[in-house]
Order: sequence, then C-alpha cells, then structure tokens
Amino acid sequence: MRFSPLITDLYELTMLAGYLEEGMHETPAVFDLFYRQNPFKGGYAVFAGLDTALTYLENLAFDKEEIAYLKGLNLFRPRFLEFLRDFRFRGRITAPAEGTVVFGNEPLLTVEGNLAEAQFVETALLNIINFQTLIATKAARIAHAAGNAKVIEFGLRRAQGPDGGSSVARAAYIGGVRSTSNVMAGMQYDIPVKGTHAHSWIMAFPDELTAFRAYADVFPDSSILLVDTYDTLKSGMVNAITVAGELRAKGHELVGVRLDSGDLAYLSRQARRMLDEAGFTEAKIVASNEVDEYVIESILSEGGKVDIYGVGTKLATGMGDGGGALGGVYKLVRIGAEPKLKVTSDIAKATLPDRKKLLRALSEDGSCIMDIIALADEKIEIGRKVYNPVNPLQFTHIPTGVRLTELRTVAMEEGKRTGSSSTLDQLADRCRQQLACLPQGCLRFINPHTYKVSISSGIHDLRLRLMEELQQA
Amino acid sequence: MRFSPLITDLYELTMLAGYLEEGMHETPAVFDLFYRQNPFKGGYAVFAGLDTALTYLENLAFDKEEIAYLKGLNLFRPRFLEFLRDFRFRGRITAPAEGTVVFGNEPLLTVEGNLAEAQFVETALLNIINFQTLIATKAARIAHAAGNAKVIEFGLRRAQGPDGGSSVARAAYIGGVRSTSNVMAGMQYDIPVKGTHAHSWIMAFPDELTAFRAYADVFPDSSILLVDTYDTLKSGMVNAITVAGELRAKGHELVGVRLDSGDLAYLSRQARRMLDEAGFTEAKIVASNEVDEYVIESILSEGGKVDIYGVGTKLATGMGDGGGALGGVYKLVRIGAEPKLKVTSDIAKATLPDRKKLLRALSEDGSCIMDIIALADEKIEIGRKVYNPVNPLQFTHIPTGVRLTELRTVAMEEGKRTGSSSTLDQLADRCRQQLACLPQGCLRFINPHTYKVSISSGIHDLRLRLMEELQQA
Repeated sequence: MRFSPLITDLYELTMLAGYLEEGMHETPAVFDLFYRQNPFKGGYAVFAGLDTALTYLENLAFDKEEIAYLKGLNLFRPRFLEFLRDFRFRGRITAPAEGTVVFGNEPLLTVEGNLAEAQFVETALLNIINFQTLIATKAARIAHAAGNAKVIEFGLRRAQGPDGGSSVARAAYIGGVRSTSNVMAGMQYDIPVKGTHAHSWIMAFPDELTAFRAYADVFPDSSILLVDTYDTLKSGMVNAITVAGELRAKGHELVGVRLDSGDLAYLSRQARRMLDEAGFTEAKIVASNEVDEYVIESILSEGGKVDIYGVGTKLATGMGDGGGALGGVYKLVRIGAEPKLKVTSDIAKATLPDRKKLLRALSEDGSCIMDIIALADEKIEIGRKVYNPVNPLQFTHIPTGVRLTELRTVAMEEGKRTGSSSTLDQLADRCRQQLACLPQGCLRFINPHTYKVSISSGIHDLRLRLMEELQQA
Repeated sequence: MRFSPLITDLYELTMLAGYLEEGMHETPAVFDLFYRQNPFKGGYAVFAGLDTALTYLENLAFDKEEIAYLKGLNLFRPRFLEFLRDFRFRGRITAPAEGTVVFGNEPLLTVEGNLAEAQFVETALLNIINFQTLIATKAARIAHAAGNAKVIEFGLRRAQGPDGGSSVARAAYIGGVRSTSNVMAGMQYDIPVKGTHAHSWIMAFPDELTAFRAYADVFPDSSILLVDTYDTLKSGMVNAITVAGELRAKGHELVGVRLDSGDLAYLSRQARRMLDEAGFTEAKIVASNEVDEYVIESILSEGGKVDIYGVGTKLATGMGDGGGALGGVYKLVRIGAEPKLKVTSDIAKATLPDRKKLLRALSEDGSCIMDIIALADEKIEIGRKVYNPVNPLQFTHIPTGVRLTELRTVAMEEGKRTGSSSTLDQLADRCRQQLACLPQGCLRFINPHTYKVSISSGIHDLRLRLMEELQQA
C-alpha cells in the first residue's frame, strides 16, 4: 500500500519550504518521538507501528499529481516544488522492537537526518506510532484480563475507517489478541481470521433450530452458534445442544456457542453447565457485547465460564480512561552541534535534550527494575545517581546487581532498513515475555504501580544548564 | 481508492457461503442501518459517509488474489469461490442526503437486494457510516460552540490511521469545520488546507525573533506565528508584533498568532489587547491545545477573544461522552414477503420491522416538529396517532398545520448511483440549515432537548403482531 507523502499537516510543508529558503534544510537534526502519560491511566504501553513507519519512510516520494496539487495552492515557490521531486528520507531511525514494553518520557523513535527530512516525517510517524501503540496497549490489557481465555478482535464495524480497522488487527495481535474477524487484516498480516454468523442468519430462517442446522450443515467442523437471538437459555442453548448431538452422530463436533447479550457471567455459567451435562465438555463458550478489560475482570470475579472473548468497539477505538488517542509528541532535541530544550513553566513538559540511549536495568532473574534515559555517549555504571525526569529534586541510584541492556537499536540507516521484519508472532512473543518481567503491580488497571524511569546525571545536568541559558537570554 | 471486499468480518463470508448452499442467496431481503442513542449524549447526529459508501458498493468485486487467499483458509467449498468471481452489489440504497440531521432509531441506510448482497455489505457500510457520522456530529457540535469563530481540523497525528485522518477531514467539513491541516484530505476532497509552523521551527533558530522573521520572510502574506514556545506574552507576542510592524513596512500584513498552551481565555484577551494597541486590529488569534466544544464554551464564557480554533485529537477521534464510536447496527427487517423483528427482553432494543419511510414534520416557517417512521406504503396524514418507539404506551398525534416531507431518497438503484454527488459545500450548507431549524434545546451539550421521533400506527401494530407470534412460537 502506498502511503502518500501528502498524509501530513500543511505546516510540515511550509516549514520545509522555509528551511530550504533559509538554507537550513541540510543542517543535521535529531528529533525524539515520545509520550508523557501511559495510556488508559495504566502502568505501561506496548510499542507498535515501527514496521509500518519504516515502510512509509522507505517509500517516501512525491508524485507528479501531488506536486501539481501543491503548486495549485499558490503558497509555494517554484524552487521548493522542484526540490520536492527528489525529496526522500535518507536518515537514521533508532527504536525499540515492536512489542517492547515502554513508559512515559522515554524516547521511542529517534529520527536523525537533515532538518528537512527529519522534520517532514513528524505527522505521519505520529499518526502511525500513536495509533498502533494505543491499540497494542489496549490489547495487552484485555489479553491480560482474559488470562487463559483467548481474545478475538471484532471491531471493524466501529473502527475509525477501513484502514483504521486493519491497523487495529495488526497492533492488537502484537498486544496479545490471537485472531481477528477482519478478513483484509488476515490477508495483509497473516493473522488468523474467525467468525461464524450474525443474528440475521437466524432471522432469515423460519426458526432458530432450522437456522442452526443449516449452518452446521455447511460448516460441520467450524460452527460456533449464536444463541441469543430469541432466548439464550430456553431456546438458543437447547437448540444448539440438539444440533451438537446431530453433528456428533455424523462424526463432527460443535466448536461452540456465542453469547452476545445479557448477563455474560450468569449466562456463561449456565451455558457451560448445559453443555457439560449434555456431554459437550469440549464445546467453547464465546462471549461478546461491549467487552473490555473491566468487563472481563467482572465476569471472572463472578465465576463466568468464558473460553473466548470477542472484543470489538472498545479495542478497535482504544476506548478507556483518557483513551481514544495516545498523546505522542515529536520534539527537536538537537540541531547542528547544539542540544535543544523546549522549556515551559511546567517541568513535566520540558523536553529532554540531545541524542539519547534508553537502558533497562534487569535483575539476575530478568525482572525489570528501572529504565534509564541517558545521553548517547554517556557511560552509565551501576551505583550511579539518577534523577526523576519530572521532579529534579528526587534522585536514586542504579542498584547493584542489575544488568543494563539497551532497549533500542538502529532500525534504519541512510533511509534503508537495517534488518528484515520480524513476524507478528515474534513481536507478540516479545510483548508477552516483557509483560511477565514487569513488577506485577504495573499490570493492574486501577492505580497501577509506577515503574521507575530515571534520567542520567548527564541529561539532568544538561537540562539544568540549558534552562539557565534560556532564562538568561 | 479501491476499497477491498475483504474489508469485512469473516462471518459475512461464511453466511454468504451458507446462503448459497441453502439456495437462499437470491431471496429478496431488506436491511436497515440505524443507531439507537445520539452520540455524545447529544440531541442529534449529522448523517455522513453516504458518498464513500456508494463508491464502495459500486466497485465491490473480488480480485484473483483475494479469492486465492479465501481458498487458502480451507473453509469454503469451490462452488462458493466460483460464485465470488461474479459477485457484485446490484441492490437499492435509500438514504438521507449527507449533512441531514438525524436521530436515534431512524432508518438511515436501507439496503434492498438479494440476501447475499444485502447481507454481505454490512460490515463495510457500518464502518463507513458509523465513523463519518460520529465525526460530522462532533464537528457540528464544535462549530456550534465556536459561533462566529472558525474551526480548523488539526487531528491527523492522533487520528486512527492515515485513512482515518482523511475521513475525519471530510466528515468534519460536512459538520461545519471549514478547513484542515491534512494535505491529503485537501487534495482528495478539495478542502482548504491550513497551517504554518511548529515549536521546532522556533527552536531551530538561535532565538524566537529570528525564527519569526525568517518565517515571515518566506510567507509574507500567510504567516500565523506560534507565540508560546518560550513565554507567550513577554516574548512571543512582543516578537510577533515586532515582525508584524516589519511586514507592514514592506506592504504585507501578519495574518495572526497562535496560542497552543496555557490559559487560552486569559491569553487570548491579552493577545488581542496587545495586537489592537499596536494597531494590528485585523490580525487573527488562533487557539489550539486539547480544544473541544466544552473548552470553547468555557473560553467564550470568560470573554476569550479567539478568531479561529484549531481542533485536533478530540475531533479526529470523536472523543466525548460515550464517544469514540457511533453504535450503528444493521438489522434484517424483511425477507421474501415477511417482515422481520428481532425481539429482546428490552423493548428499546427490539427492531422496527419491514420496509419503511422516514418523514419529517415541518411547521410553516420550516422548523422541525417531529420525525415519523412509517411503513413504506403507509398513508400518513396530519392528526394521526403516532407512538413512542421505545415506550408503546406513549402516543401523540401529528399536529395540524405541519408539512410532511420524506427525508430519504433512493441513492442507488440496481447497484448504480441515481444522481451525481453533491459538493462538500452543499452538504455542509444542508447541515447548517437543518441545525438552524431544530428546536434550540437540541443543540445544547448537557441534557439536550429530546427531539420527538415517533413510529406510525402501521409499524406499531405490525410490531405488536410479530412479537405475539414469536412469543407463541
């Protein structure tokens, strides 16, 4: 899929034109993409969208039609339109692998290149990374709540556009959702696709039993029957069990039933009992209808017997506390040889200057202890003093006995990928492993444990110096 | 843009295969697309997405690669894959024009065709109509709050995917937002594009004044200077006024300044005063930063002086009360010669059976009095009894002195559009005119007036009869 370079805010183009005019377009620049608050008031985020972002960057080029449109805006000089013809991204991208668990204030993507290319890609990178990271995080929360039960992503009909729907399926898979109803996403990303029938299937037949029989006839080995069209327990379950018996007599097995309304905790317990009593102990119970991590927790707390959750709207749109969008931003941290800082009256909103590395301190057993944001060329040793990024008065020391690992690698150099893409399964595995190494309290939905993210003394001192210089100016 | 037929839930395909197998695929069927609750707990919705939906329907066809993918799922029989090769949508679509103000329970799209085609298009139609209607409604609320001030849509970086971003700009324009920062949407839909520069522009220069001068130099007639990088009033506004003076000396005028943080009500009043005192009474004040209809109301209530609002995240993702998604559904209302009803224990969730028309009762001066959902061939006269759709005990009469108009027309017949597309300006005009004719209280954000939507006695009686039959069965 071509990702047009016009998928950008106009100001990226006006700034580009400005830098060209000022002769600054080739000045080396470094930008960080990061967010400040974990989404959903949660304890972490799951980084996603990198592969999509790299595809965008690799193919970035204006075609004739696009340049003609820009010309028609009567805003740009001919020299700039000429410049756009050969405009490409030839910079460097440093980033964690997708599926990595990340936290507020940490540099996710770092983009290095000349000022023109590194500035221009801001909007598209934010669009891609903000959305996929939001959804991967939501998916991880839902998968965590579901425990051993599986989760299917169902949200295409409420997703924000068709392409929104496909990105959802990809990001949700990285976060731990094992399949999707979205066939396009299945083809595009090789994600298992699932689904059986709607209420309308039942209504298209004279009665529910006839409808179930017809469906089981066509799909004898893959039927999940939707049992709530008329009355879940008195009609739907009874008819489903009849059909399950008929299937078994022909050498097939009913895969399961789906509950799509009502009290899912109660109905799933009753449905399980009815299936078990009739000898269909392997038949699965699927539950859907406005499900999210909180609904799953409450179903489980009441002993609900759900094997598979179908999760739609709330996953596909990333709904939740402060939800619907991840507030990722893209900030200039270095230009030429000068580290840069955006000051504001709120220290929490001051950016972290200069080119950085992102380290994770792991205990001997691999548990995550803390993350440290440091200058790229700074030597970080065990025992060193590190600071709270939003409260400069608070500091601690890197504990002894930890191992420091770099969380990010160079994913693109001179506009080309440095390696081949991982499979989605590899990304999902990474996510699962990393979540398992977090302090348990980080996974809690309400008032989660705040994982410690520190800044090195190098960044701390540099920030203080730059703020002083700015205040004097 | 091609809209793949695989942008669908798998169950649409399994049902299609089932109907083919059962010999039911050519049975005539009627589906209604509707939602139950107005979005954002508001008093109305603005219907949008029809043109996109018709484009999808007109071009619906499976290509070889898609059929090969489906074959590889090992779920479908060869006859079905063969059937898909020539599968097209050749049905009828009845719908309001985009920009029409609509309400809960009203049939928006009605899809008539054979069961195969009418069922299959469910997911894509919901995806398109749900999202665009949500955003058009949000935009109408924001534009209403802004009153005489203009609104620019800024949300691409937080939108749900690149395509999500373009749909946002289109739908927002219908709802009353006059321009976008999204260049792709500008090219695709001929929407005016706006934007100037980011904080990074300022930070790329040695100081703010130099940065402002450089920008004004390149864009002498279209500069809106972002004044909050360091200190809005003490630095940004002072430097912007200096540059405004320099521009004027060269025969140009500063277009305006943008405030992107802090107390927008206070800062906009101060900025206005400073500009006016310096003689720049025509310079505009743009305000952005997490703006939505509630923020605009509060800025206005404190005498804020904003000429243009830049609205991003909360518009692009449709955030708000119950927001992020419009809960549109797609229900079978007739198959063959039989009207159909989905019953549930909750009367508010029982569907309205059969093919319908949607009427609006207007007073002599064109004010909207009530909407009436009636059977397609039912004669509706002034004075007739009509019922509350969710409370069958409550009824009223169509008041005398009103004029009844049909809100919907046939937009597609035998798979072809019946007319040419309207321009987005025409759709936006319709929306503005219709909102002006609503009872004033419907536009309120908190506890809005509930506009009366009634069902005819024909629908009321049919529903009662069908429910009785179902309960006896």
